[in-house]
Amino acid sequence: MAIKRTVLRAGLLAQSEEVVRETMIPYQWAALHDELPGAEPSHAIGNLLIAAGEKNGEYRGMVFQDSDVAKWLEAVAYRLASHPDPEWESKADSLIDLLGRAQQPDGYLNSYYTVVEPQNRWTNLAANHELYCAGHLIEAAVAYYEATGKDKLLQIVCKLVDHIDSVFGPEPGKKRGYPGHEEIELALIRLYRITRNPRHLNLARFFVEERGRKPHYFELEAKARGEAMSSPWGQWAYHYSQSHLPLGEQETVEGHSVRAMYLLIAAADLALETNDGELLAVCERLWNNVVESRMYLTGGIGSQEHGEGFTVDYDLPSDTAYAETCAAIGLFLFGQRMLENVPHGKYADVMERALYNGILSGMSVAGDRFFYVNPLEVSPSLNQIRRDQRHVATTRQGWFRCACCPPNLARLLASINRYLYSFRQDGLYVHFFAQSEVEFTVGEHEVRLNQATEYPWDEQVRLELNLEGGLEFALHLRLPGWCKQPEVKVNGQVVEVSVPDHGYLTLKREWAKGDTVELKLPMPVERVYANSKVRETVGRVALQRGPIVYCLEEVDNGPNLPALVLGAEPDFRVVLDPELGVPAILAKGYRLENSGQDLYTTVVPKAVPTEMKAVPYYIWDNRRPGEMLVWMTDGCLLGKPDLRNGGEGHERDS
Amino acid sequence: MAIKRTVLRAGLLAQSEEVVRETMIPYQWAALHDELPGAEPSHAIGNLLIAAGEKNGEYRGMVFQDSDVAKWLEAVAYRLASHPDPEWESKADSLIDLLGRAQQPDGYLNSYYTVVEPQNRWTNLAANHELYCAGHLIEAAVAYYEATGKDKLLQIVCKLVDHIDSVFGPEPGKKRGYPGHEEIELALIRLYRITRNPRHLNLARFFVEERGRKPHYFELEAKARGEAMSSPWGQWAYHYSQSHLPLGEQETVEGHSVRAMYLLIAAADLALETNDGELLAVCERLWNNVVESRMYLTGGIGSQEHGEGFTVDYDLPSDTAYAETCAAIGLFLFGQRMLENVPHGKYADVMERALYNGILSGMSVAGDRFFYVNPLEVSPSLNQIRRDQRHVATTRQGWFRCACCPPNLARLLASINRYLYSFRQDGLYVHFFAQSEVEFTVGEHEVRLNQATEYPWDEQVRLELNLEGGLEFALHLRLPGWCKQPEVKVNGQVVEVSVPDHGYLTLKREWAKGDTVELKLPMPVERVYANSKVRETVGRVALQRGPIVYCLEEVDNGPNLPALVLGAEPDFRVVLDPELGVPAILAKGYRLENSGQDLYTTVVPKAVPTEMKAVPYYIWDNRRPGEMLVWMTDGCLLGKPDLRNGGEGHERDS
Repeated sequence: MAIKRTVLRAGLLAQSEEVVRETMIPYQWAALHDELPGAEPSHAIGNLLIAAGEKNGEYRGMVFQDSDVAKWLEAVAYRLASHPDPEWESKADSLIDLLGRAQQPDGYLNSYYTVVEPQNRWTNLAANHELYCAGHLIEAAVAYYEATGKDKLLQIVCKLVDHIDSVFGPEPGKKRGYPGHEEIELALIRLYRITRNPRHLNLARFFVEERGRKPHYFELEAKARGEAMSSPWGQWAYHYSQSHLPLGEQETVEGHSVRAMYLLIAAADLALETNDGELLAVCERLWNNVVESRMYLTGGIGSQEHGEGFTVDYDLPSDTAYAETCAAIGLFLFGQRMLENVPHGKYADVMERALYNGILSGMSVAGDRFFYVNPLEVSPSLNQIRRDQRHVATTRQGWFRCACCPPNLARLLASINRYLYSFRQDGLYVHFFAQSEVEFTVGEHEVRLNQATEYPWDEQVRLELNLEGGLEFALHLRLPGWCKQPEVKVNGQVVEVSVPDHGYLTLKREWAKGDTVELKLPMPVERVYANSKVRETVGRVALQRGPIVYCLEEVDNGPNLPALVLGAEPDFRVVLDPELGVPAILAKGYRLENSGQDLYTTVVPKAVPTEMKAVPYYIWDNRRPGEMLVWMTDGCLLGKPDLRNGGEGHERDS
Repeated sequence: MAIKRTVLRAGLLAQSEEVVRETMIPYQWAALHDELPGAEPSHAIGNLLIAAGEKNGEYRGMVFQDSDVAKWLEAVAYRLASHPDPEWESKADSLIDLLGRAQQPDGYLNSYYTVVEPQNRWTNLAANHELYCAGHLIEAAVAYYEATGKDKLLQIVCKLVDHIDSVFGPEPGKKRGYPGHEEIELALIRLYRITRNPRHLNLARFFVEERGRKPHYFELEAKARGEAMSSPWGQWAYHYSQSHLPLGEQETVEGHSVRAMYLLIAAADLALETNDGELLAVCERLWNNVVESRMYLTGGIGSQEHGEGFTVDYDLPSDTAYAETCAAIGLFLFGQRMLENVPHGKYADVMERALYNGILSGMSVAGDRFFYVNPLEVSPSLNQIRRDQRHVATTRQGWFRCACCPPNLARLLASINRYLYSFRQDGLYVHFFAQSEVEFTVGEHEVRLNQATEYPWDEQVRLELNLEGGLEFALHLRLPGWCKQPEVKVNGQVVEVSVPDHGYLTLKREWAKGDTVELKLPMPVERVYANSKVRETVGRVALQRGPIVYCLEEVDNGPNLPALVLGAEPDFRVVLDPELGVPAILAKGYRLENSGQDLYTTVVPKAVPTEMKAVPYYIWDNRRPGEMLVWMTDGCLLGKPDLRNGGEGHERDS
């Protein structure tokens, strides 16, 4: 029993997949070749040519520049899997050939060390990303092999892994090291699933289990370099790389948010592969910590620039947020791995929150501009002078000196079709809703399921089965956590829905050709409140419709967005925005205006009725740059008429 | 017609004056001599001894360490003026002797350059504070001469000024420079008022007028050093020191907030001395910019650590505020200088706001712990990890590496009696209210006025005149801007009060011995709102009673203060706090509590009724460290009963 293929047909996800295919992959190919006018040069291809001895010059860019090439290759692989294309396949093949030529005789492959300090390989795992880059090459190799059947890159990375395996491990004489930036752990498990080579699984397990042990490896390697272990993160030096404690002893998710997610993805994969319930419990504990106290409404994570990471529970500032696009992608993938362990809707709910909000916000609709940081509030005039917002771009950028996010978006969105459905035990799980088709086998039998919907914009989802004769199996339909009254019909007959704890409705029966399942997921506009422990959002409210978080933009509402107050009876209207082509929300609200110029007064600001317009958060900054705001001042502020009119007797100011 | 002396008798200001006298002056004497266990060593006296050739060793501390000595001397001078004391006078004299010995034959006096780089005098005005230190020495000399009649320090600084005058000025061959940190300008005008030496006034005017001219002096001096003019403030490099434009062309107050205030104090003094209406208009324009859009409710100024300065209008973050104690003192003194130009209550209102809130907050009640930064919101657990709050101390400190604030507090509070009254034209101005006595002359006649009050805690103020026979003059009583219905009686007879625009009520008549004026300044607890252009405080409310701004502390209200909501009908009660000895405010409010653990939900948090307790802002952190909050969530949030109870139908979370 397995899924043979899933094809996206139409809708927001299909459009994103198409943008990756038609725009991002060519755009990023140009970026990697430094052919983007006005954008930060990547020099990634140049570095590999120098490493291969085919070009003179100096290595340039970050030490992990190779990983941008690998992530691009991985994205191309997914693109070729769904849409074969000889032109891009040959471009990819040429890049793979270059990687082969840049690989050293002993299997080592990293352009920075090969060009800059070949004598210092594996001496600074804490900072220099060798294992991280290897991990991305491995993921690309697996994806490219699965997509094309070509194993050249797979051979290259297996040789690289053999070399790494000869350097690292618990055995005497080997380094007991692990990467400062996790990635290779999850990649090795993906590789293992192809090769079934136990050394690949064991090496992944070693990296995960060795992390955070005492004596601390990063201290030892620093001493070996004749340096002291120093870090800009001070007392959080080890938290930064999740190496402050062995994973099993960690109670909270700490440090660099992308690194933390990549570690947990690998841990969840390990738990599945080795059937390790204890490790799964650790993943569950840390998952709960993130989603219950350290995640933005948008699915973004990482509350400050310093350390690009987590701070403390419930610290979720809007305008100084970090919420790196890569981190939201990491949370999505962590959720997906948890879902493979335990088919529970709570994981899919968070995946969906991240995907439609904090991930899609990372790119422009056209696919050629990107956000690295995804704040929930922006005011360009402040951003220009406030040092604590220096890291926030108020409009999407063409490329980045540290360009991890754009290729990460490309590889995720090019493979998004793979996450819609999964098959386990006795049936098919429908995790996400999109116009799509999935082919799977039940025993000998082939089944095709067609999903027709305009989700996330419309509440209707229609599934139609196509198979020979009758066949018993289960359909597990996800009932999204955001939906309060889902309705289900099978062949037109209403099915009693009592929302199951685990968030999936199981329809087990003998299915026949033409059987239909209709889902109605009513998506009224909802007022959303954050837990009152979140200092930033007390007295604020956000709008959500279905899985889509909305925001206010200056282009629709004028400046000083916090002075707009969502009315207590906002009379929400959902209308298609002609310019953006997506549903906008119109609401009755107020604009606070002061009677005088006084900075402080005992006279309550007047509330002037106004119409507010909110658009999906992910699509902000696709028209004109300006202010943006997710958490709006709560209209219940205006509940007291006497205060609404302001004590007119109070003419003088305090 | 003039004021002979003013004596504080009792109350908050008298207590502060006493704390300076009995605690701060001895404490800071010990600090300057590095005799404070556990506190940052000052090394200020040591540096002077080395400069005088009486001690070996290296210069240590900031380049402006001399100024701490000068400010201490100035404080002692005020203390001796009101409370003569041979012990402290001899200590001061010994310090003045040391300064004399540290002065160079040509009059130059600065321990840093004398010890560290004597060859580089006057080569880095932008950064190295030589003129700033000279300014503080001049202020100390003037104050000490006025207090004791001793002119030794006055001679020392006159010699120093002669030297400076030989180096700087518009004349050919002189440097057209000015200080990176203003201070000497205002000091020279104080000196001029003693010496009447026009060169002292002209040098002050030169420094003020030359500032910001092109070609830019800081660029020229950098070039002369063989360096490029560089600054951590980037595009704001010149704004940082208010040298981006000539003062007359500045429309907004920019850069380092203390520097900006010191420049404007000098400008206002110049306007008065030279009767320059144009310059006064510039001061007025910049005064309005500060108080109408860049000042915290506490009278603190400076919205960010970076550059210790201003950002943009209405940017007043609470938890990352800078609001340096010295800056609030600078605003107080700027207001006092404006008041000397134009007797308008709006200046005194701001002075009072700063004094009772953002200035007094800078020291503990005991006078031995200090805040450099005065935030309006503190959460110690966040502060520990949030880099953007790194500059905020969540509890007062014993001393600072950069110790400008404590001695600045000492000199202001030791001289606070001088600002209560002023005499001009035909009468006496009563600016501030405190149990005090003032002696002044009208023509030949001596008049004594006794002010009896428990202000700022009580609304009653009683003035009684003591003079021989009958005498006509005016009493100008300030009617504070915060007071909505002041009442006035003369000899028990109610006087019709129509609040005058300029904030002072003039009582002109023939006064006789025993005449009384009774002021009643009703001080109900007021809800204060910030202009809705202030993003930070929309939906928030603060409490003020009389001139005192209140705050919540964790010690009274438990943790997570933003979840406390001030009720719409709070039923305020003012009660004396037995531990603090000042009035606290009790109010009915609510604590927001979530039904579940969910981070995000469509269920409105429950509002559990609770009693809230607010204490004066200036006195926070005198019990146990913990959270503090000035801007409270506004209780009108709870105006909608349906929302107060939370839609119980909404059990599932979005």
